[in-house]
Amino acid sequence: MTDAGPPPLAVSLGDPAGVGPELICEAWERRGDARLPPFFVAGGAGLLQAAARARGLDVPIARIDHPAAAGSLYGKALPVLGDLDAPYRPGEPNADGARLALASLEQAAALAVSRRASGIVTGPIAKALLAEVGFAFPGQTEFVADACGAAAEDAVMLLAGPSLRTVPMTVHCALSEVPARLSVELICRRARIVAAGMRRDFGIAAPRLAIAALNPHAGENGRMGDEEQRIIAPAIEVLRGEGIDASGPHPADSLFAPRARATYDVAIAMYHDQALVPLKALDFDEGVNMTLGLPVVRTSPDHGTAFAIAGKRLADAGATIAAIRMAGDAAARRLAASSPQVR
Amino acid sequence: MTDAGPPPLAVSLGDPAGVGPELICEAWERRGDARLPPFFVAGGAGLLQAAARARGLDVPIARIDHPAAAGSLYGKALPVLGDLDAPYRPGEPNADGARLALASLEQAAALAVSRRASGIVTGPIAKALLAEVGFAFPGQTEFVADACGAAAEDAVMLLAGPSLRTVPMTVHCALSEVPARLSVELICRRARIVAAGMRRDFGIAAPRLAIAALNPHAGENGRMGDEEQRIIAPAIEVLRGEGIDASGPHPADSLFAPRARATYDVAIAMYHDQALVPLKALDFDEGVNMTLGLPVVRTSPDHGTAFAIAGKRLADAGATIAAIRMAGDAAARRLAASSPQVR
Repeated sequence: MTDAGPPPLAVSLGDPAGVGPELICEAWERRGDARLPPFFVAGGAGLLQAAARARGLDVPIARIDHPAAAGSLYGKALPVLGDLDAPYRPGEPNADGARLALASLEQAAALAVSRRASGIVTGPIAKALLAEVGFAFPGQTEFVADACGAAAEDAVMLLAGPSLRTVPMTVHCALSEVPARLSVELICRRARIVAAGMRRDFGIAAPRLAIAALNPHAGENGRMGDEEQRIIAPAIEVLRGEGIDASGPHPADSLFAPRARATYDVAIAMYHDQALVPLKALDFDEGVNMTLGLPVVRTSPDHGTAFAIAGKRLADAGATIAAIRMAGDAAARRLAASSPQVR
Repeated sequence: MTDAGPPPLAVSLGDPAGVGPELICEAWERRGDARLPPFFVAGGAGLLQAAARARGLDVPIARIDHPAAAGSLYGKALPVLGDLDAPYRPGEPNADGARLALASLEQAAALAVSRRASGIVTGPIAKALLAEVGFAFPGQTEFVADACGAAAEDAVMLLAGPSLRTVPMTVHCALSEVPARLSVELICRRARIVAAGMRRDFGIAAPRLAIAALNPHAGENGRMGDEEQRIIAPAIEVLRGEGIDASGPHPADSLFAPRARATYDVAIAMYHDQALVPLKALDFDEGVNMTLGLPVVRTSPDHGTAFAIAGKRLADAGATIAAIRMAGDAAARRLAASSPQVR
């Protein structure tokens, strides 16, 4: 069970009727040019074979019994762990598929938690379908946090593409609830996790956090909202007092313009669309969702199951490839930090 | 007083200590390659001369006494109407400069209203400074609406760049006030103006309006906010019943992604930053603010006075050039529509 090298990444299938399986196959096919670290898939050997064929790819599958076997096989075949499987029916989601997606996720997460995988890359799932088969979490982020024994509030969603890294302080709530959810404590707690994540997972020694305003024109000194004065500016003061290079509150519309983006390492947004609109406008096909603040590395392509185009050779593998690479880079940095003798 | 051709555009100086004057000079210098229609500046002959020199441009100035004289001079010199002027002090705004900016704006607007100019392009002003010298409007848009005898609610701000056209339904208010300001009536009234503007000023016979949701994921059927169900979807129904090609409510984060942008002519956003964040992320140096719904054509570069870089050859003239060209195109379409015999 002891192979050379660090443990491989674990990739979960996502919903088998979505674009997840075909994109995993394409990522493996492009592993050389894309400089991807070794990974294995948690289940789905037959499914992946069929998805590769539908995509016009010739992907040999190597079934493995333990993660450590993936490393030596990875150059020649796509390693798939265990016997979980289902027929390939792209665009036809059902409860069996949701159960497979959940089992694959559970397996991948357990292996990352036990350090037999160096991180987890989660394929896209359909939350409503998963809830119907008993999944009790709002999303995969909360599931992975729970599997690590971490509090959901400490799992912070980073969205990252070639043009932009951004973190929303609030996520899945109505826009009308955003102002009441913001607090000095919330922003400080999450911004600290972001700063630590930039150092630990991206190797940025002194990360620059640019913090967005909530209101247009940053509120114009209270003429259009006072959250900047009451909440955001005081939070920035606290963070700066702790030695974190936090700036703002910046008017959101200028913050994502090209020259502004060159001045920070990560933009802290106040709500979901303030972060997701620019990320998807700029980096739609390469957006990665990474969870900061957890003991395990976890990334995901920042797109959904795309049932409507599954199996049609239309889905872009850019985000899946970027998610695998980002997880591999973060895992390598964490490993190097924990083993100074091999540096 | 009768020259050949349609009337020229009137350009207002904007704050003389900002980047407005130098960008007008550069636009004139590049009028050939940029295919700009004839325009004149309302005042500032000495100021413009100095601003051109500071920018390293050789721009001959031709003082004129009436707009119709601009057309024949425009090829050889930058036409400047009247005697308004001030010393050039880039980066040093003061009350005298604000008074000149206001007088230039008033003159340009009056000439457009009386049809001696075919439209108005307004340079960037500092609202706070203008308010101190007696300007009683929230911005230039409301001023121009008033000069036309139109209601401010009927002056609708379109933001347009090479990648995107977008219109926010609410503009200068706190984010927390946005939900209460939205109504079926507001969205229908403004969307009708947008549809008419796309036809009249952009020549798009059957404009496609993509209407954004307010909440993340378009509210997920009411789980995260109900404005989509209560307000936005019903407004879309009304608009479609009137024959307007309106779609949505679309989740905002997907709406501004590249492939989505190819499916509509204009995106209707619910609030300021929902429109301005993607516009500035994508088209920062070429964004134009156009006022739809008024009897006169009015555009403006979508940037501020930028006092900090005025006179330093750093400001990009792209937005000023785009604003002049967009005003010229719209004016030409309106003229052609009102004079069928010359089509």
